[in-house]
Parts: sequence; structure tokens; C-alpha cells
Amino acid sequence: MIKPLTIGEIVNSLGGQLVGDPHLVVSCVSSLRSATSGSISFFVDKRHIAALRATAASVIITSPEFSELTESVKIITENPYLYFVKVINLLNAAPNEAFQGISDKAHLGSGVEIGERVVIMPNAIICDNVFLGDDVVIGAGCYLGSGVSIGNFSKLYPNVTVYDDVRVGKNVIVHSGAVLGSDGFGFVNECGRWYKVPQIGGLVVGNDVEVGSNTTIDRGALDDTLIGDGVKIDNQVQVGHNCSIGDDTVIAGCVGIAGSVKIGKRCKIGGAAMITGHLDITDDVTISAGSLVAKTIKLSGRYTGVYPLSEHGEWLIGAVELRKMARTKGRVS
Amino acid sequence: MIKPLTIGEIVNSLGGQLVGDPHLVVSCVSSLRSATSGSISFFVDKRHIAALRATAASVIITSPEFSELTESVKIITENPYLYFVKVINLLNAAPNEAFQGISDKAHLGSGVEIGERVVIMPNAIICDNVFLGDDVVIGAGCYLGSGVSIGNFSKLYPNVTVYDDVRVGKNVIVHSGAVLGSDGFGFVNECGRWYKVPQIGGLVVGNDVEVGSNTTIDRGALDDTLIGDGVKIDNQVQVGHNCSIGDDTVIAGCVGIAGSVKIGKRCKIGGAAMITGHLDITDDVTISAGSLVAKTIKLSGRYTGVYPLSEHGEWLIGAVELRKMARTKGRVS
Amino acid sequence: MIKPLTIGEIVNSLGGQLVGDPHLVVSCVSSLRSATSGSISFFVDKRHIAALRATAASVIITSPEFSELTESVKIITENPYLYFVKVINLLNAAPNEAFQGISDKAHLGSGVEIGERVVIMPNAIICDNVFLGDDVVIGAGCYLGSGVSIGNFSKLYPNVTVYDDVRVGKNVIVHSGAVLGSDGFGFVNECGRWYKVPQIGGLVVGNDVEVGSNTTIDRGALDDTLIGDGVKIDNQVQVGHNCSIGDDTVIAGCVGIAGSVKIGKRCKIGGAAMITGHLDITDDVTISAGSLVAKTIKLSGRYTGVYPLSEHGEWLIGAVELRKMARTKGRVS
Repeated sequence: MIKPLTIGEIVNSLGGQLVGDPHLVVSCVSSLRSATSGSISFFVDKRHIAALRATAASVIITSPEFSELTESVKIITENPYLYFVKVINLLNAAPNEAFQGISDKAHLGSGVEIGERVVIMPNAIICDNVFLGDDVVIGAGCYLGSGVSIGNFSKLYPNVTVYDDVRVGKNVIVHSGAVLGSDGFGFVNECGRWYKVPQIGGLVVGNDVEVGSNTTIDRGALDDTLIGDGVKIDNQVQVGHNCSIGDDTVIAGCVGIAGSVKIGKRCKIGGAAMITGHLDITDDVTISAGSLVAKTIKLSGRYTGVYPLSEHGEWLIGAVELRKMARTKGRVS
Repeated sequence: MIKPLTIGEIVNSLGGQLVGDPHLVVSCVSSLRSATSGSISFFVDKRHIAALRATAASVIITSPEFSELTESVKIITENPYLYFVKVINLLNAAPNEAFQGISDKAHLGSGVEIGERVVIMPNAIICDNVFLGDDVVIGAGCYLGSGVSIGNFSKLYPNVTVYDDVRVGKNVIVHSGAVLGSDGFGFVNECGRWYKVPQIGGLVVGNDVEVGSNTTIDRGALDDTLIGDGVKIDNQVQVGHNCSIGDDTVIAGCVGIAGSVKIGKRCKIGGAAMITGHLDITDDVTISAGSLVAKTIKLSGRYTGVYPLSEHGEWLIGAVELRKMARTKGRVS
Repeated sequence: MIKPLTIGEIVNSLGGQLVGDPHLVVSCVSSLRSATSGSISFFVDKRHIAALRATAASVIITSPEFSELTESVKIITENPYLYFVKVINLLNAAPNEAFQGISDKAHLGSGVEIGERVVIMPNAIICDNVFLGDDVVIGAGCYLGSGVSIGNFSKLYPNVTVYDDVRVGKNVIVHSGAVLGSDGFGFVNECGRWYKVPQIGGLVVGNDVEVGSNTTIDRGALDDTLIGDGVKIDNQVQVGHNCSIGDDTVIAGCVGIAGSVKIGKRCKIGGAAMITGHLDITDDVTISAGSLVAKTIKLSGRYTGVYPLSEHGEWLIGAVELRKMARTKGRVS
């Protein structure tokens, strides 16, 4: 799957300033540490200077700021990591799908519309009235409920479940085990027992979204749950019913978002952060990993709420003091 | 799937006091904000008064307390939200399953007992000696191990896995990706290596339970894990081996419950709360979202343990002070 | 599946000092509380003395320290719980798999190598060039991408997904819903939009590993993600790209580990702990449940960082004081 290129060809494609022989051929990308001859790597962080000095990489991508630090053949560019990523895509042709076309072991319901060059792997279940755009890939064992639509170039890895009527945009990636459009958690109490609130809203996922493995996104109760364009969601994230996530927001692993939360654009939600229900977070907010958000955030910025880690004995003393502080104050006030 | 009704028919069915023409027809439910003519909505919270004033809904369900706030056609009842939920069920006939009967692409082992009107979708695997009650629905790609039993009217969405001998009650809903009865996390150390403790207990799930997508509930080590009647569990929850969850307790998303925890009846466990092993929580306890419970709770009430969220710079100062407090005290004592 | 044994046979097999008639037959294992006649149980914790006095178990396994506490027939040994676990394995022959051999409803790609006595259940998808060692079991609905290898005696429960080229060692257990080798969460920002960093590293899982249900372990970005020998991972755990987990480390449920974290050997990571990216944890570290680890840990020991749980009103007072402390200090400095 590797297509070796000369660095002249790379610079012709991607730009940047080349220092060295344009006929030099590179055949793989690697980190500085694991590089071998013939590989291209990148340097963006002075802390890795020792690795830069020791590397066997044939070519280094770096920024003008650091270009003097190496005598190696190099490509100088403003955003070396992005450049490196583009080189990965140049060198590594997309792997062939394990399957081509529509498997005769897949189930296709009635009224299904299928675009050009679609791949449907064995044991996928495509229910009635599903729409699949061009170049869509549906992995083995996926389930697409009635009325689901999946936009062009989107790919569902194996064993993804999509409930009825969920709409997924173009160029979306959904990893294995994700569940899109399951019922929101809605119950009303009647004499001590919980009575299910039917979840008749939908789920709309925008374009260029990535959804991590085993992530769950619930459908709305009445109105729709909305995932904006360019949103990137890591593994094991839970998004509750009627949430709305703004464009280009990124959500790290293990985050939980309760129902009816509105998150703005370009936010960064750190791993295992938890956001309680019915609140708004404005644009450009960063939530630190592990923080609990229990109120609306109206000002952009970074927010944190985690107990600092200590050696256990020291933590114990601090916890006792904290509790004493609360009790003293409680008696006084 | 919508069956339009007159509001006279609705009140005949569900009770309540009608103010307006009983021949008025409603054909959908909606929130105040997204309502159009012909829809029925509800009002229970004074903070939504602006939405009430602006709504295009034809009928409002509300309580005696708020009935003066609108001149609209209305139904007055003590629990408007519950009433509204019942209207949803009246108007929205349960959707037809995507499949009917027993798919010839399902696998049925020997000694399987199947009740009346059961649906088994393609690629479901039903191992030997499974019992399925009347009106059970088994989604595509579900796996039911040997000896599993599923009570009447229960529904497993696609891609649920049920390990051997798990017993599920009546009228239970299990969402996609859930795993019932996998091995508990039990190991014993022998000279630095971990030796697996066989998990030979079972899992018994009561009646009227709902289990969210990608939730996992482990079987017991020796005795059974028990989920009481009417328990509602959201997505991505982990319930460890030998837990016992009391009737009508609700558990929000991303909660983790370690092994051998006993939770009482009618508890409410907030999202992402974590409960460590071998402790008891009495009846009618509420745990706030994100709290860690590390000791037994003997008194009903609400408990919280989360670091308050701050702007990051302020949090940093607080964290430093907290640590200083612990260190000072540590030196003194 | 039970094979009754005399306690003489048990002691011949496993050692220990027998006090009582070696011809006594036991036919099941149980906890002290649920024991009936004919069962063998164990006693290791003085807090369960009442259960010991009341038990109907025919035989008690206990330590020299506690051997005087019961007049029952007993086996005395240094590690009674480990001994008990071994008795479970003696008495309970491994259950027969629900299926034998290679199902004709499984998909086998080209170039697949299959060892002796392998079981592949219906609807499993084995892509091209997969290697399966001897005695491997692949559950129903599992997906193994191209180039995957699974070592001898390893077992994948139903509905596990393994991405291309993942290598799994010998004697590994993977529970249902787990996803091995999905893409790490890597994006680079270009003018406000996120550009996917191809994840071209791999995932290597050592020998004697257990992976819990719905756990996700990502492949590396450039280099491999590494799970050491003897590592035990509970349910719903997330391991990010390029992590390295040392031998014999145990990770409890709901833990999140961000990318490029290096965890040493014999660590114990408590439930729902969260470890942020790019840090090192040395050998023999214990992290308490619910703690956030945000910096490198160089010294072995136990570390904790959780807000102590209180009755909600008391928590509120403490939280207000904590915030006041931060604000006062913030103004002063």
C-alpha cells in the first residue's frame, strides 16, 4: 500500500522549502525514534532534540524556527505536523476495503436507494427505505434501521448500530460498536414507578464528523439531537437526547453529556469530563479532563474542576481538613 | 404511524378537564417551541412562559396552577407531563418492527422454546435451551447464549450480547451494544501474576427494566447479580459482579458500579457517578452526578462529592491552597 | 458440567492439610452464606465469622491463622482463596462451547491460516490473511480484519471487533463488544477545521491478557499501542493510541487512558480513574478509584485525588469555602 516518492514530488504537491537533493526517495513515515533510512519524519518540539540528533530518518520536516537544528535533508514549512500528515496520505494509498460491492450475505430491505461504488459487507442489515450515498462503506454486522440516510463518502466500521430515521452527513466516519439514535433516557414518575417517555425525536449528524468506537448518541425526545459539521468525538462518549454540538467541537474519550446540553462551536471537551443536563456552553470553551460542568458557561475560556492528585496519605489529610472547614462553617453560619 | 384524534377522544381515554371544542383534531405532539397548528403540547414550568405565549400549538396540557396563563384550548390535569406522555402513546401507534416472525437467517439451537408472536431478526444467534416468552423481539445480530430466558413482551435491539444462563424478566428493553452476563472482574494474585477466578454465578434481570446502549452488567462470581423490577439504566453504565440494584432505582449514563455493591430501592444515581466495591446504599438515596461513593450510606438523602468548576486560573490557585493546607497540617500533626 | 470429587482427591491434586475424612465427596463450590450440604467454601476474613458459624458447607478452606475457628471438615492452606479458585476449576469442567468446529455461516477470506481444534461460530467474519492459533475460539458476529493474528488458546466472545493487523497473544480472553485497534483520536487543526491524522500504527496485545466487555483499545498513530503480558482490563475501559501498559497491571472498569501514556508493571488502576495524555506512571503504582492523573508519577505508591463525598448541604458549604479561599488568595497574590 506504500507508494515511494521523491522529495521533489512531495514538495511539488504540498509546497514548502526543500533543503537537499530532490531526487531522494522516501518510502515510509515514522517518528524520529523509530525512523530508518528511507523514512521521513518531523520535528516541532525542542524537548525532542536528542531524538532529532539520533534519528536515522532521511528527511526531516520542520519549521523555519528550528531549521538550523539539523544538518539533515529537510523540508521547511510553517506547520510541520500538518505537512507530515499530508505526506502520510500521499505515501499511504488508502487501504483496499476487505470487501468490494454489495455482499450477497447482506440483507437489503425494500425501497433502499444505493449510490455508486457503495460497499456493503456480509451480515450488514439494511432495513427498508434506507438511503446510501455514493462511495459509502457499510461494515460487516452493521444494522441500519428503516429510513436511515448516510451521505456520500461516509464509512461505518463493522458492528455499528443505527436506529430508525437517523440522518448522517457526508464524509463521516463511525467506528465499531458505536450506537446512533438509541432512545434517550426519559421517564416520568407515577406513584413511585417510572413510566417510559417515548423518544420520537431524531438524530442528525453533520458532515465531516468522526464518531469513536463504542460511543453512543441518543435520539431526541421530541425534537432532534444535532451534531454539527466537523465535530470529532472519541471513543466511549455518551451524548444524551436533544443535545446540540456546535461545528468543529472536539470531544475526548469517556466524556458524558447529559440531555438537552447545547455546546458551542470550536469547543474542546477534555477526556472523562461530565456535563450535566439542560445547560449551555458558549463557543470556544475548553473543559479540562475529568471536570464536572454543572452550570451554564457564558464566557469563552478554559474551565477546570478536578481534585488535585496526591500521595494517598497527603490526600487523606487534605480531605479531612476540607471536611472540617465545611463543618466549622456549617456550625457558624 | 400517526393516528389523529379529537381532543374529546383523548379526554375520554385519559381523563382531565377539557377547556375548548371536543371536536378539535390533533395529529402530532411537540414541544412548545417547535409546535405547528394541529399539535398538542404541554406547559409545566413558568420559565417557559415566553414559549407558551409564542407557541402555535392548538392544544396545551397544563396544571390547575398554570391554567390561567393561556387562552388556548387546553386540558387541565394534575401531572401534565405524564398526561402528555400518554398522549404520545395514543397518537403514535407503536412502529411496526422492521421484520416479522422468525428470520430464516437466524440461528436456532436445539431445545429452544419460543412463545407466540415472537420476532427474531436475521443473524440473531439463539443457542441451545433458550426460552423466549410471548411477544418477544430479538434484534438482528443479537447473541443469546445457552440457557438464556427472556420474558414476555421484552425487546432486545440489534447487536445485544447475552451470555449463558442469564434470566431477563418481562417487559424489558435492552438497547444495542449492551452486554449482559459477561464475566465479573475477579482475579487472585499468585506470586505476582493474576489468576482468573471463574465467574460461575448468574445474572437475573427483573421485570420492566430498561438497559441503555453499550451498558454492561456482569454475572456473579459465585452468587447472582440482581437487577430489581422497574430499574432504569442509561447508556454506558457498568454494573459489576454480585451487585444488587433495588426496585425502581434509576441510574444515569456513564455510571460505574464496582462489585458486590447493594443499592436500595428508588435511588437516583447521577451521571458518571462511581461507586466503589463492597458497600451498601440504603433506599431513597440520590447521588449527584460525578460523585465518587467510597463508603456505605445508611441514611436516605442526597450526597455529593465533586470539585466545583472554575475558570482554570482560579482553579489553579484553589488547588495550590488545598495542597498547602494538607501539607501544613501534615507537618503539624 | 460438575464433576464431584472426594476431598482426598482434591488435596492430592492441590496440596494443603486435610482435617477430616478424605472420602467425603463435594459436588459444588459456594459462598459461606449460600452453601448447602455437599459444598465446599472458604474463610479468609474475620468479619465473616457469623457466616462461618452458620454455614451449611461440608468443607471449609482456611488458613492456619483461622483454622481453630471452625470444627468443620477443613483444608488448611496459605492462600485459601487461591486454593478455592483452583477447586472451582477442578470441579467445573470448562463448559462446552455452544458450537464446535468452523461454522459454514462464518466468512473466511483468502490466505487464512487456522490451527487445530479451532472454533469459529456463525456470522463471524475472518478477513484475508488472518492467523488463528490452535484451540482458538471466535464467537458469533466477531469481525477480524485483514492480517489479524490470534495466539493459541485465545477466546473472543461474540460481537468483538478487531481492526486490521492487530496481533493478539496466547491465552487471551476478549469479552463481547470490545473493539481492538480502532483509530486513535488524532487531528491537526488547519484554519479552524480538524484534519484527520491517519492512524497507521498497530496494536499488540501480549499473552494471558483479559479484556472486558465494551472496552476499546486504539491502534497507534505511527508506532504501536502495547498491552503487556498478564494485563487484566475490566469493562468499558478506553486505552488511547500509543499507550504502553506494563506486564501484570490491572485496570478496573470505566478507566480512561489518553494517548501516549506509559504505565509500568504491576500497577493497579482503580475504577473510573482517568489518566491524561503523554505521561509516565512507574511500576507498582496504585491509583485510587475516580482519581484524575495529570502528571508523571515517578515513585511507586498509592495516589488519590477525589473530592470526599458529603451530605449535599455540607458539600455545598465546603465548595463555597473552597472557592472563597481561591478568590481571596487570587486577590492577595
